[in-house]
Amino acid sequence: MVDLSRIAPVLENLAIEVPSWAYGNSGTRFKVFQTPGTPRTVQEKIADAAKVNELTGLAPTVALHIPWDKVENYSELSGFAQELGVTLGTINSNTFQDDIYKFGSLTHSDAAVRNKALDHMYECIDIMNVTGSQDLKIWLADGTNYPGQGDMRSRQDWLHDSLQKVYERLGDDQRMVLEYKFFEPAFYHTDVPDWGTSYAHTLALGEKAMVCLDTGHHAPGTNIEFIVAQLIRLGKLGSFDFNSRFYADDDLIVGAADPFQLFRIMYEVARGGALDPASNVALMLDQCHNLEEKIPGQIRSVMNVQEMTARALLVDRDALTRAQESGDVLGAHAVFMDAFYTDVRLGLAEWRESRGLPADPMAAYAAGGYQGTINADREGGQQAGWGA
Amino acid sequence: MVDLSRIAPVLENLAIEVPSWAYGNSGTRFKVFQTPGTPRTVQEKIADAAKVNELTGLAPTVALHIPWDKVENYSELSGFAQELGVTLGTINSNTFQDDIYKFGSLTHSDAAVRNKALDHMYECIDIMNVTGSQDLKIWLADGTNYPGQGDMRSRQDWLHDSLQKVYERLGDDQRMVLEYKFFEPAFYHTDVPDWGTSYAHTLALGEKAMVCLDTGHHAPGTNIEFIVAQLIRLGKLGSFDFNSRFYADDDLIVGAADPFQLFRIMYEVARGGALDPASNVALMLDQCHNLEEKIPGQIRSVMNVQEMTARALLVDRDALTRAQESGDVLGAHAVFMDAFYTDVRLGLAEWRESRGLPADPMAAYAAGGYQGTINADREGGQQAGWGA
Amino acid sequence: MVDLSRIAPVLENLAIEVPSWAYGNSGTRFKVFQTPGTPRTVQEKIADAAKVNELTGLAPTVALHIPWDKVENYSELSGFAQELGVTLGTINSNTFQDDIYKFGSLTHSDAAVRNKALDHMYECIDIMNVTGSQDLKIWLADGTNYPGQGDMRSRQDWLHDSLQKVYERLGDDQRMVLEYKFFEPAFYHTDVPDWGTSYAHTLALGEKAMVCLDTGHHAPGTNIEFIVAQLIRLGKLGSFDFNSRFYADDDLIVGAADPFQLFRIMYEVARGGALDPASNVALMLDQCHNLEEKIPGQIRSVMNVQEMTARALLVDRDALTRAQESGDVLGAHAVFMDAFYTDVRLGLAEWRESRGLPADPMAAYAAGGYQGTINADREGGQQAGWGA
Amino acid sequence: MVDLSRIAPVLENLAIEVPSWAYGNSGTRFKVFQTPGTPRTVQEKIADAAKVNELTGLAPTVALHIPWDKVENYSELSGFAQELGVTLGTINSNTFQDDIYKFGSLTHSDAAVRNKALDHMYECIDIMNVTGSQDLKIWLADGTNYPGQGDMRSRQDWLHDSLQKVYERLGDDQRMVLEYKFFEPAFYHTDVPDWGTSYAHTLALGEKAMVCLDTGHHAPGTNIEFIVAQLIRLGKLGSFDFNSRFYADDDLIVGAADPFQLFRIMYEVARGGALDPASNVALMLDQCHNLEEKIPGQIRSVMNVQEMTARALLVDRDALTRAQESGDVLGAHAVFMDAFYTDVRLGLAEWRESRGLPADPMAAYAAGGYQGTINADREGGQQAGWGA
Repeated sequence: MVDLSRIAPVLENLAIEVPSWAYGNSGTRFKVFQTPGTPRTVQEKIADAAKVNELTGLAPTVALHIPWDKVENYSELSGFAQELGVTLGTINSNTFQDDIYKFGSLTHSDAAVRNKALDHMYECIDIMNVTGSQDLKIWLADGTNYPGQGDMRSRQDWLHDSLQKVYERLGDDQRMVLEYKFFEPAFYHTDVPDWGTSYAHTLALGEKAMVCLDTGHHAPGTNIEFIVAQLIRLGKLGSFDFNSRFYADDDLIVGAADPFQLFRIMYEVARGGALDPASNVALMLDQCHNLEEKIPGQIRSVMNVQEMTARALLVDRDALTRAQESGDVLGAHAVFMDAFYTDVRLGLAEWRESRGLPADPMAAYAAGGYQGTINADREGGQQAGWGA
Repeated sequence: MVDLSRIAPVLENLAIEVPSWAYGNSGTRFKVFQTPGTPRTVQEKIADAAKVNELTGLAPTVALHIPWDKVENYSELSGFAQELGVTLGTINSNTFQDDIYKFGSLTHSDAAVRNKALDHMYECIDIMNVTGSQDLKIWLADGTNYPGQGDMRSRQDWLHDSLQKVYERLGDDQRMVLEYKFFEPAFYHTDVPDWGTSYAHTLALGEKAMVCLDTGHHAPGTNIEFIVAQLIRLGKLGSFDFNSRFYADDDLIVGAADPFQLFRIMYEVARGGALDPASNVALMLDQCHNLEEKIPGQIRSVMNVQEMTARALLVDRDALTRAQESGDVLGAHAVFMDAFYTDVRLGLAEWRESRGLPADPMAAYAAGGYQGTINADREGGQQAGWGA
Repeated sequence: MVDLSRIAPVLENLAIEVPSWAYGNSGTRFKVFQTPGTPRTVQEKIADAAKVNELTGLAPTVALHIPWDKVENYSELSGFAQELGVTLGTINSNTFQDDIYKFGSLTHSDAAVRNKALDHMYECIDIMNVTGSQDLKIWLADGTNYPGQGDMRSRQDWLHDSLQKVYERLGDDQRMVLEYKFFEPAFYHTDVPDWGTSYAHTLALGEKAMVCLDTGHHAPGTNIEFIVAQLIRLGKLGSFDFNSRFYADDDLIVGAADPFQLFRIMYEVARGGALDPASNVALMLDQCHNLEEKIPGQIRSVMNVQEMTARALLVDRDALTRAQESGDVLGAHAVFMDAFYTDVRLGLAEWRESRGLPADPMAAYAAGGYQGTINADREGGQQAGWGA
Repeated sequence: MVDLSRIAPVLENLAIEVPSWAYGNSGTRFKVFQTPGTPRTVQEKIADAAKVNELTGLAPTVALHIPWDKVENYSELSGFAQELGVTLGTINSNTFQDDIYKFGSLTHSDAAVRNKALDHMYECIDIMNVTGSQDLKIWLADGTNYPGQGDMRSRQDWLHDSLQKVYERLGDDQRMVLEYKFFEPAFYHTDVPDWGTSYAHTLALGEKAMVCLDTGHHAPGTNIEFIVAQLIRLGKLGSFDFNSRFYADDDLIVGAADPFQLFRIMYEVARGGALDPASNVALMLDQCHNLEEKIPGQIRSVMNVQEMTARALLVDRDALTRAQESGDVLGAHAVFMDAFYTDVRLGLAEWRESRGLPADPMAAYAAGGYQGTINADREGGQQAGWGA
């Protein structure tokens, strides 16, 4: 069994925020399947998230999505979460489900529409002021479907103006993280399609504006870990949205589609110092469990991040550097792969037990009665999904 | 103005089937926008389709989708359509929206599920027997999201068995067209992902089974016109689902994303003899008008096919062959491009007028009162969409 | 340490053919770097291949490429190989480096060019008759760069005629394996671009014609293991060309770019029975070591195939089937991943030792003096590469 | 015939730099075909380029590539060019063909290698000082083939340091244009893979550093015209390398693979003001004529840019804005497409004649005796290619 004591301090600090919406229903344009036990309220989502944290010790915060998680009293919601052992995290804005946003939100040619979207952003900041959340996440569905439909250039200018107004509302300890996405739901052009665009905008705004990197939002063949390394180097990587994909933005369990890619990403995260306590790079899941069970899906996800982080931390950096600098291609690659191929699962199980956690959180969840309880308790009502 | 008389006989025969669902609402997993005037019933969809045919002379048949277009009496529906000047065409089956199909339909490991899907296919054939439709279209959403989730190999065997049963029910003048799709809604594997799979299955079934090629269902970089040429050569191209896309299965207006690709496709269609009266290759649209107006979207679509067909027919085949055989790369390319760059729009306008059609169907639609009428008439009720 | 005894019989039979050209220089259109010790002759290539087999026990045969490996006396060459403990394997034809093939070979519009290419194929069969090789591999660079440059449809017909003639020359125990490739060196269209095309042609020829699947020859996002499963099911998978890639046909070390993909491929190979002694699916490398050392690169490659085969064989098939049939997505995925994450390296090392092989072939090669010897011995002369 | 008088002033200023290497041989890693009449010297390349300019009036400058175009006396070369009616343009550096650059040049871990690459850049600037060239183009082949092979993060720092040193050598009227490329010749990671990286580096350097956008250097599905619009907006678009591609960096004739994409790009160029006389965005070809004739290939290329520029300029910007701002998706798209579909060829022919140029430069070239003369004159010697 591999000895993890060297890397234990970093593992100790590892925290992965979970998204409230992962516990609700999701699907494709063809069909959204429902499952028993699905939360009807944000409180039930938080309870599920708290169960994930209870069993893994890895998920101490829950991201909210407004308006899907809208409540009357966010202070109360915050207290509710804390009683369950978790806190409220990133506030995710939504300017893509109102009819008025059909042709854009922060990028719309009509100032009235942009103002409505701005009001929503301000509302999110108000919520952050109550919940104590650090990050306002802005992901825009804005874009066009047909060449000529919109003026791409002007939309960038409108976007800058809009973001500037939001930025000015941020408190001293608050940040804006601007997510980019290659495509979907817009097909021809997306207003924030790549890290370069997000970087250019956040750079123009100031140091409280950072880039959010969603691992599923890139063109085929893109070397994502390079972007991770680059953004850390530029001091502009604010947060991750973890998931995995085969072709489009599949939002599958992180590490499921290409575990080696996750390893390479976590290596660059560690290499760049983003796992240091002083770093402020936030790790978060953004996934959809369309077919699989949701709570176990989240448990598996945070464990995947933990396992690949452990492997990445096991890379013998000195040996790697020596091989790299001597032009020993196969030697350097072997040092790298040796860490990836090391089976850390037993070591992590033991380490979990040493912290009073179940050695096997998946088994512990299956053996516990939680799923049966919620299946029974959550009969009736409107299951949560993307629409509400 | 280019002289189209040489190609007029082929233009005369050009017919593009329109899908009933193009007139209903559609969207992405993020949002389905509604528009005024959207049909509430299949009769209203057919009325819209008839308007497209009235203005263009290009769309004499309407494809139905079961159960979205389910009615009590298909004979009556057929008569309704004929009164409006169109006929009912391909019957599109749907085995992806029932909860039982969560893990597959014709490919499911459980025979009970496969039988339910088979019953649906039989129901579709029953409808065809009433409507006189030639083609049963089978597009399967079947697949898996995670490696290991299903047994890809066994699923092929189950698929073959299922298709065999459907095949046996086909009447003498009926065909099955098996559509393939690269990805979506399944993310890891799709049971009919490529033309090779569709070809292998339809070949095993017999001559009444053919391949349906949807122009949006290929991996990036795929040379679609090669597949068109190959399937025509193999005698296995049954039908087209026309649309266009930038990255995924965008279902945009055919010719909108890459007009030159549509030209190349239509060239191979003509080259392979599939525009001959004796050919039985069916041309059909399969599109979604998420943001744009639906009826004008369909008018534009059939006109795009017409325009690119005209350009493709203008290729000087003799000059092309001469250049090809002499290894004159630039010369051959120039012959090809000359046809593509020829502006056929004025010629087609005149040709339309000569047949008693509006020279500019888009303008004629805008000037006519149809949209205003349906906007007013179709207040209330449940707008049609993919769910109903 | 994982117990491999259950899977030992299959490991025992595992054999991976190595390509002679992997030991020569290769590169990109920008630069071919040379390295010390590179063979100048086919005999030196075979000696290097024999060293790989000596240290791994995995590579008993060497593929030749004609004309790169042309010699006067193939019987003598065969004896030379056997003295070094290996035998000559697949004969790879080459119709892409003669000026006459600029616009095609077996697909050329000019029968004289096709005949020249046919003569080359016959020459390869003559060599096979001497070496006792089973497989004639046909990979065609044929295609066009510009739309209109060639007649795709006629080229398919010419291809069929050409292949038919080659097929008729095959001896009773000989096979033709027809390789497909998505793109390169032709940019617009490739005459055998996908498995469907290779399948259609080999099906038309007969049972001695099979498909060769090169793992680097697919469009982005293609599920290669599905094709593996399908071709095995159809009885048409003749052989593999193993390598790995990030974007194009990188020809990197198999398993280097996406080890999980190699695992999934080997799982379908095992699942489909293609590792059974009765199977005739040939495993072969087709790689280029542009930057890394060549002999260690080949050792690493065959070990990667061995390691991933071992992992794939460790999948608990019964547990997997149970989970699949009960719709337990996460459970089935976990069974699959458990095998992938199992560290088989120590077990394989022990198993190697039990067969009299070095536990660590990479270390054994580095410690042995072979590289030093060839670096010294192979001074001067013309290093082998793709041109000779 | 369309009236081009409105756009004539812009057409009048249109100038497209041609690359000296387009006149030499090029190919793929599989084969470089030779053609009669191929230049042996830089003077012969310049003569060919001058012929292109003579017939089209579009190509007044020729880019050089060092060391391929190395001469003793650049002042003399400059005079030679001017006598033929053209001037020397961009100096393209090359740090990818020396053995020392096997593992990198400006990004190499070894300062000695970086210094050698720097010396080459200084040499290029020295040449610029003589030729009066404005731009030093830096395209780096730097990258790695295997995960772990190099330290991506440190290489960025070394790159910055190297570029800083080059930047400091630039004269007041000189610029550095930093080209990015998605992949090739490195397969795993490329040190300047995307516009974001090039932007970040050139921003850090200062206003004399700009981004070079090669239209063939993007991942599949990338919206290139968006990047064009963004870089113009950010004031960082220095120059274009025009070509076209189907999958990889095919270096085909610009506009050949996707004419509509070239139209969209030229629209954004015009929209952003980059065709204004005050703009300093340089248009340049970077192509390889592997199979087609080279001089006609270049003539076709500059004409393609001219034709698509004309179409882009014909877009009715007022009508487009009105449609965009009213949410008229189909209307806006139609305005856009109307310009694309307008056949400008006859108008341009007339406009050429009015300037004393041949109406049809391709026909004029074929009718003139130039190709015959060079085929005869350039017997013997070493044809120019990428190696020399």
